[in-house]
Amino acid sequence: MARLAHYQTRINNFLSQKLADLAVNDEKLLEAMRYSLLLGGKRMRPYLAYITGEALGASEADIDGIASALECIHAYSLVHDDLPAMDDDDLRRGQPTCHKAFDEATAILAGDSLQTLAFDILANHEFSPAVEPMRLTLIRQLVNASGYQGMCGGQALDLAATGKSADLAQLEQIHKLKTGALLQASVLMAANCAPSITDTEKQALADYAGHVGLAYQVRDDIIDITSSAEELGKPAGSDLAANKSTYPALLGLQGAQEKADHLYQQALQALATLPYNTQNLSEFATFIVKRTN
Amino acid sequence: MARLAHYQTRINNFLSQKLADLAVNDEKLLEAMRYSLLLGGKRMRPYLAYITGEALGASEADIDGIASALECIHAYSLVHDDLPAMDDDDLRRGQPTCHKAFDEATAILAGDSLQTLAFDILANHEFSPAVEPMRLTLIRQLVNASGYQGMCGGQALDLAATGKSADLAQLEQIHKLKTGALLQASVLMAANCAPSITDTEKQALADYAGHVGLAYQVRDDIIDITSSAEELGKPAGSDLAANKSTYPALLGLQGAQEKADHLYQQALQALATLPYNTQNLSEFATFIVKRTN
Repeated sequence: MARLAHYQTRINNFLSQKLADLAVNDEKLLEAMRYSLLLGGKRMRPYLAYITGEALGASEADIDGIASALECIHAYSLVHDDLPAMDDDDLRRGQPTCHKAFDEATAILAGDSLQTLAFDILANHEFSPAVEPMRLTLIRQLVNASGYQGMCGGQALDLAATGKSADLAQLEQIHKLKTGALLQASVLMAANCAPSITDTEKQALADYAGHVGLAYQVRDDIIDITSSAEELGKPAGSDLAANKSTYPALLGLQGAQEKADHLYQQALQALATLPYNTQNLSEFATFIVKRTN
Repeated sequence: MARLAHYQTRINNFLSQKLADLAVNDEKLLEAMRYSLLLGGKRMRPYLAYITGEALGASEADIDGIASALECIHAYSLVHDDLPAMDDDDLRRGQPTCHKAFDEATAILAGDSLQTLAFDILANHEFSPAVEPMRLTLIRQLVNASGYQGMCGGQALDLAATGKSADLAQLEQIHKLKTGALLQASVLMAANCAPSITDTEKQALADYAGHVGLAYQVRDDIIDITSSAEELGKPAGSDLAANKSTYPALLGLQGAQEKADHLYQQALQALATLPYNTQNLSEFATFIVKRTN
């Protein structure tokens, strides 16, 4: 992905500055927020927002506000999902999870504070005059993608399905909410910073993101059983150990990869309808279905 | 407090409707949100917002959006603060805490979802045309009061001070952030729904709320050692058991009550400068320093 390193550096610098701008109240909490937000991470959501903005002619400075808010939500969800009461993971990105590096209370508060920071950034980012009227729309999009009706609801459904056999429709519903909603928001929030975009084009982008989001999860399930802990930066086979329904469990390994490939084709078809240079977006889709960690 | 029952009913109905409006994804999570939001609670923050609005001539329908968002933030903070990794409380309002009634994972997610719901409400509430231009200001006020720079930061400082001896200045800083910020936001957000209010009047209201907020905490510390578990609806003496610095520990019981009384007088003095009928606000201050549970 040609622009990945560029945008990773950009978002890391931006997030680092956001944290540096906070007045220090409790150093440990701030350090836990920094640890959760800045220690590694592929920055998929920010990258998706930036390359969408780039394709549509939005300004990078506008996308900064969106990409950083999305990453704060994503980071908070990882910190809370890793907690002993949830997925009970000790490693994340090859490093101790937040509650291992600090303690559980601090991890809970760091997650809470990162969620607020996401809305802080969206409410206060210096958007360009053309994007400023979209600020409330952007806040609403992030609310819908991240709360009970989005990511949090998906995580609850995922927990409820653990130890039970979910069917394909249930599995798709879980992932649409748990990871799909935020990936789709990455594309659609960026699209709202574009100078001119039609509803039809937005719908094509939503379709693209929906297919890529699901492909991401199918591939994630495959990787969990085919990769080593070293490659993953976390224990392999954790889905199996947790007795979770997965695409490979329901479709077999080959069936799951065929599903990912089909979603990939649908994503490319959605892109093909758009009158923009969507090279980076199609490369992103390729990366998603080929990645090994 | 003359208007308490009226506004309690109003906010409970409003919050109940907000939850009913959510599409059902995960029933258990929605039930945990409902449990945390609707099972008891004095509704001090909503009440403060409503009586401020009433004094200043704001519409109740506008204040609904503010009062409910504030209560969602307060409820989420209680759910997370009660967790075993934090204050480890089994009872809240005489009922099992959320993680006891459900489980820890659900309590974490219910808290997360209630935080998002607060911003959902502020971003989507149907404010009157005169208040609509204040929507972003209201969101920014709630962000500042509830995140790292407010309530979350205060809770972190409170945890850090447990088992250590904090001095009066540190204790005041903790409470200003942990509880004061949200109480002050209750008054100031409501003031932003008033048809005409000057900066001087806002400052007087901020002073009032600051004094009342601190008095609330001083009184809370006193009640914790003088009341029974039955009166409190939770174990008494929990501050002492947790080896927390409190006003009675630093000033003695009598000194702490004198501190509360002094703050009460300062709150009334701030009100006296306002050209409104502030009867309900002064009664609220009286209630705060006299309450026994």
